[in-house]
Amino acid sequence: MLNFTFYSPTRILFGRNQIQNLGQQIKPYGSKILLVYGKGSIKKNGIYTAVIDQLKENGIDFLELAGIDPNPRLTSVVQGADLCRKHALTFILAVGGGSVIDCAKGIAAAACYEGDPWDFWSYKTKIRQALPVGAVLTLSATGSEMNSNAVITNEATGQKHGVGADALYPKFSILDPTYTFTVPPYQTAAGVADILTHVYEFYFSLGTEAYLQDSMAEGIMKTCIKYAPIACAEPENYEARANLMWASSMALNGTIGAGKRFDGFCHNVEHAISALYDLTHGVGLAILAPHWMEYVLDEQTVHRFALFARNVWNVEGQDEMEAARLGIQKTRAFYRSLGLPGQLSEVGIGPERFDEIVNKSLFRETLGNFKQLNREDVSNILLRAQ
Amino acid sequence: MLNFTFYSPTRILFGRNQIQNLGQQIKPYGSKILLVYGKGSIKKNGIYTAVIDQLKENGIDFLELAGIDPNPRLTSVVQGADLCRKHALTFILAVGGGSVIDCAKGIAAAACYEGDPWDFWSYKTKIRQALPVGAVLTLSATGSEMNSNAVITNEATGQKHGVGADALYPKFSILDPTYTFTVPPYQTAAGVADILTHVYEFYFSLGTEAYLQDSMAEGIMKTCIKYAPIACAEPENYEARANLMWASSMALNGTIGAGKRFDGFCHNVEHAISALYDLTHGVGLAILAPHWMEYVLDEQTVHRFALFARNVWNVEGQDEMEAARLGIQKTRAFYRSLGLPGQLSEVGIGPERFDEIVNKSLFRETLGNFKQLNREDVSNILLRAQ
Repeated sequence: MLNFTFYSPTRILFGRNQIQNLGQQIKPYGSKILLVYGKGSIKKNGIYTAVIDQLKENGIDFLELAGIDPNPRLTSVVQGADLCRKHALTFILAVGGGSVIDCAKGIAAAACYEGDPWDFWSYKTKIRQALPVGAVLTLSATGSEMNSNAVITNEATGQKHGVGADALYPKFSILDPTYTFTVPPYQTAAGVADILTHVYEFYFSLGTEAYLQDSMAEGIMKTCIKYAPIACAEPENYEARANLMWASSMALNGTIGAGKRFDGFCHNVEHAISALYDLTHGVGLAILAPHWMEYVLDEQTVHRFALFARNVWNVEGQDEMEAARLGIQKTRAFYRSLGLPGQLSEVGIGPERFDEIVNKSLFRETLGNFKQLNREDVSNILLRAQ
Repeated sequence: MLNFTFYSPTRILFGRNQIQNLGQQIKPYGSKILLVYGKGSIKKNGIYTAVIDQLKENGIDFLELAGIDPNPRLTSVVQGADLCRKHALTFILAVGGGSVIDCAKGIAAAACYEGDPWDFWSYKTKIRQALPVGAVLTLSATGSEMNSNAVITNEATGQKHGVGADALYPKFSILDPTYTFTVPPYQTAAGVADILTHVYEFYFSLGTEAYLQDSMAEGIMKTCIKYAPIACAEPENYEARANLMWASSMALNGTIGAGKRFDGFCHNVEHAISALYDLTHGVGLAILAPHWMEYVLDEQTVHRFALFARNVWNVEGQDEMEAARLGIQKTRAFYRSLGLPGQLSEVGIGPERFDEIVNKSLFRETLGNFKQLNREDVSNILLRAQ
């Protein structure tokens, strides 16, 4: 187990009707806030009304920034920060999924910074200060509701980068599983692929095994496998939605990553792809992960894949290599069963820009820790995923 | 899954040499502190020197309160609070196991309260304010390093009660697994029994199943089972000590209890026993838990016990009742293999004060949630454990 710091100060209010506590959670941070949300689905399913009622009941004034894109743009960050400064807003409330929450975090940091906010995502400067942020979650996927990360796309340069800073932890997040009842099966499945890939990034490691964290990671993966099909088939199954929602937070709040290394292959390559093609993050991950697994399976990595097969997919018997292969096959079949694509061509992505994707994925000579991959490897995996 | 609030703001610094960060962690809270520790084992193993060096290097003045008992006393709480007030101390550093940390939390609350501190533990008033506390952990057991609970014994009344309050979360805890290298096998085993029983209290429940939390709970239990024998046989096995240390925090920091109910039988009865007999908490739990399991096993509870047997103890085949019985047998054998007692008589406790223990265990008509137990049931379990 590597040395680590664990810090997870976000207060989670989980369950039905937790929205009733929204006003009281915001009040310590002021009474003039920015309300950030997406393309308006929250107006159809009643969440918008519930939020507004709470704000009004508690005498909280708000300005709105709506229309945040699934891969949130730097321009939205700049726009929100301008609103905060101009109107002296002191708190940002994100109502939505990871994109909306990430955008709110970006705005929170940009509002406290005089320079170009892209300085943060181009790693020129660190985020030291941000307005306080709170979240009402409507999609189980990214874990942004309980961590300090924010991924922003610079549409001018075609880059999608993530940063993390203590100042970005949401002060609170409201997780009401019924708020995900209206998420369609395809988006539900994409969210599950996102959760699972967060787990893979830590679980698949060499030389940094941590039995406790890995066992808990297996619990999260089994939870996704058990409840994803149920949530897709019965969108209003509370227990399924609740387990997936809490799994999304637990997968990336530090619990299973403590003392381990983040591999990074899937996330870096998917960010490079979705910055260019505006693909749903979880869909990109569902395509990439099994191809990556097959590519990196070898004598060094087989033991970890065999554990994955046996402990997560209940593969019994077989030698390690055969069990490992079966585990990967089951992973692929699981995504297929949820209606997710297995190849980039299925989402209209050809090999034309693969070189660009490789360039944007690799910050250094190699990518990944479980198995260090060079440019040629990354290119090979893309060709297999094509 | 029940509605829940999850809040876990303690910053954990985990791993070798994390003591180097001690001064910097304390400084935001002032430079005149109270240093609380136990019977002096930290002076033998070098931890005391490492702490003092950090305090001196960082210009932090300190007063000492040493000699905290394994079941920390109200008199120590009063004594510490007096020191804090008299010398205007602004921070309390606990160096030790759960007893020392609990005592430091008690002092922190008492220092901010004009009345009799026992008011908190007799549930007359709530803790709303406390001095900030930090911890350097030297024993993997109670989880106090990462939660808001403090258990204090009133030696005058023979009561041992626990309270919780947001103000009691340690600001930081330093978890260096090498600091537990000198813990003898018997104390190591008792700590493991404490960790496991925290898990049982949540895991064994009816009507509040939560697949994700229960799967992660199984991960913690498997970790204890894997590493306890190793830590007892090879006291300086870093990986074993690290897994047990992090397991102690994870078992009672809210992660596996979120959305579940705390059963409470084992902890309430053990508190009643150790308030009278000054028994090591984990030893009392190791004795009680298997007897409790056997007593509450019936048609209603058998499914959960069978899951425990299959997922934690790898019991294969068998019908549910037979698997459940095997799981309980394995639990008992595991404690025995670690050198822990199985009956109260082995630690010199006879039936003389069983009535008193029953009285102190039951706040209401029944005790426990998994199976509600009345006075007669509690008495029967004590007789079996005798």
